[in-house]
Amino acid sequence: MSAPVRIAVDAMGADDGVAPLVAGAAQVSCEEKSHIAVTLVGDRDAIERALSQQRHDPSRLTVVHAPDAVCMTDKPREALTAMPHCSILRAARLVRDGQADALVSAGSTGAVILAASDTFSRLPGVRRVGLAAVYPTVERHGPHDDPFALMLDVGATLSCSADDLVAFAVMGSAYSRIISDIEAPQVALLSNGSEASKGTAAIVEAHRRLAAAQPLNFVGNVEGIDIPSGRVDVVVCDGFVGNIVLKMLEGVHVAAKALARNAADSKLRYKLGLGFLSRGIRRISTLTDWKQYGGAPIVGFDHAVIKAHGRSNARAVRNAIKVAGKTVERQLVQQIRRGLR
Amino acid sequence: MSAPVRIAVDAMGADDGVAPLVAGAAQVSCEEKSHIAVTLVGDRDAIERALSQQRHDPSRLTVVHAPDAVCMTDKPREALTAMPHCSILRAARLVRDGQADALVSAGSTGAVILAASDTFSRLPGVRRVGLAAVYPTVERHGPHDDPFALMLDVGATLSCSADDLVAFAVMGSAYSRIISDIEAPQVALLSNGSEASKGTAAIVEAHRRLAAAQPLNFVGNVEGIDIPSGRVDVVVCDGFVGNIVLKMLEGVHVAAKALARNAADSKLRYKLGLGFLSRGIRRISTLTDWKQYGGAPIVGFDHAVIKAHGRSNARAVRNAIKVAGKTVERQLVQQIRRGLR
Repeated sequence: MSAPVRIAVDAMGADDGVAPLVAGAAQVSCEEKSHIAVTLVGDRDAIERALSQQRHDPSRLTVVHAPDAVCMTDKPREALTAMPHCSILRAARLVRDGQADALVSAGSTGAVILAASDTFSRLPGVRRVGLAAVYPTVERHGPHDDPFALMLDVGATLSCSADDLVAFAVMGSAYSRIISDIEAPQVALLSNGSEASKGTAAIVEAHRRLAAAQPLNFVGNVEGIDIPSGRVDVVVCDGFVGNIVLKMLEGVHVAAKALARNAADSKLRYKLGLGFLSRGIRRISTLTDWKQYGGAPIVGFDHAVIKAHGRSNARAVRNAIKVAGKTVERQLVQQIRRGLR
Repeated sequence: MSAPVRIAVDAMGADDGVAPLVAGAAQVSCEEKSHIAVTLVGDRDAIERALSQQRHDPSRLTVVHAPDAVCMTDKPREALTAMPHCSILRAARLVRDGQADALVSAGSTGAVILAASDTFSRLPGVRRVGLAAVYPTVERHGPHDDPFALMLDVGATLSCSADDLVAFAVMGSAYSRIISDIEAPQVALLSNGSEASKGTAAIVEAHRRLAAAQPLNFVGNVEGIDIPSGRVDVVVCDGFVGNIVLKMLEGVHVAAKALARNAADSKLRYKLGLGFLSRGIRRISTLTDWKQYGGAPIVGFDHAVIKAHGRSNARAVRNAIKVAGKTVERQLVQQIRRGLR
């Protein structure tokens, strides 16, 4: 058996406390096929209390005590300065110092990005890191028919230069290749028209450079209409637009769920056979439930970082930890480094 | 009876030719309650042929012959230069010269904006005009429970300054007040967080100014998640983001329609009572079918301009003409002028 992949999990700072983080890690520890060992970083008492309620393999779980935590409502920079030994910084240092191979956190996105920036180095050629999100699509992707595509940046870098967009294209392509086993992922820029001349100056320039030189499968621009269908594997945009788009998908999900509830409430429909009636709506609801896909990678550092949603349940945490393991096994960072040369 | 409101309708340049434009105008001419007289501007033969197939009131329809037309595939500026007497320019000049009160076109958006820019003046305080779109929402708005909200800009001005965003807020508020009878429409900036500090520099500055001084019902920032629900009456953003958002709503509509078709194809569902089964999905589909709401106003000129969708059917054209009539009767331009002072 090969050496285990070691994942440092920041157990603090998520919306529902340590419980889902611990439960997700416990699930991974019991998976026979996985080679993952998890270090849970956070308040030892709380973690061990939660662990005692979960079936887990103690030989593949360790705890590092770090009771200080950044809350969702804290200002990230102030909190990190005030708590130099908080869980997210401790977890990042485990990775930097070679005691773990990748970092997972479900805490405040801003705090995770800042903690990683303070602890890790950016790869050569990366001016700004990208937060990538896997989002659900109608079309399937890759040899495993994955019902999702990748979008970046979705919030790490509000305004992007052409350089940033090109780097995001390279990094998104590498991540998609690794996660979905797609040999040459289709990469596109999100713009207000398909022509190369459409978009902001940064997008037009990034288009020119991606079309000319990069060894990527760059397919040009996509428009907003192509996002729900998922025509390409990787959608590249600046963090402001990506944030709006991703949250809009969540809004569609909320709306579809409300409509599905209405359908389920209808007595007539119930009599006619509820299971069939609202399946269509539920499918839309599932399609738009991006939270089920676990973690969002933060790309551009010299170590792999997976940001799980703050409202992650145990399954989402388990998925995020396994995704982190995959990025280590398949050498995401090295691949990105090569792609940026 | 008061004097009729005179609408100049560019009958050319839409995806399906003159037919839907003529049919929409014919419908309006037969409405007893309406005080609208329409001038159809385009190829006289084609218009009269189409008119002969429609019930219409000839006393309220005139034709101005202008056979040259800008196509959707033309480069707008080149086409307008090459065809100084084309239908959209002729229609705009009718309005400028006082022979009509407002302009409606279903032709190329770029050509309509350029033709209006060449022919009309911008109002004092308007550096860039805005293209506003009425889009469907889950929540209802105003005293008539309108199932839609307004978003601007959706493509006229890609990158906006704080000045532009503030002007859009004023103009969107005036339009919403007039169209939906909302006394003090809730206006918000679209950003990546609800805090006043969130967003690009232009958004942060616009937020500061709207919160401080403008006599608008400014409620702060909304996020992407609030778009489908429709938490506010008027959403303000730059044209790049607005274009992505609007086309994404269209993409959701396409996806929902495909799912509804699948549901309708199911034999089992058919046996159980088709009318009920896919109603929920169809409701999502309707909710996202922004095309049914007719025209999009282009605001900031000294005359009212309504851009109907290129794929408008007769009903959408009729709605666009009636919306144009309402903007004249309720003095949209004067209200915007006052709001910008």
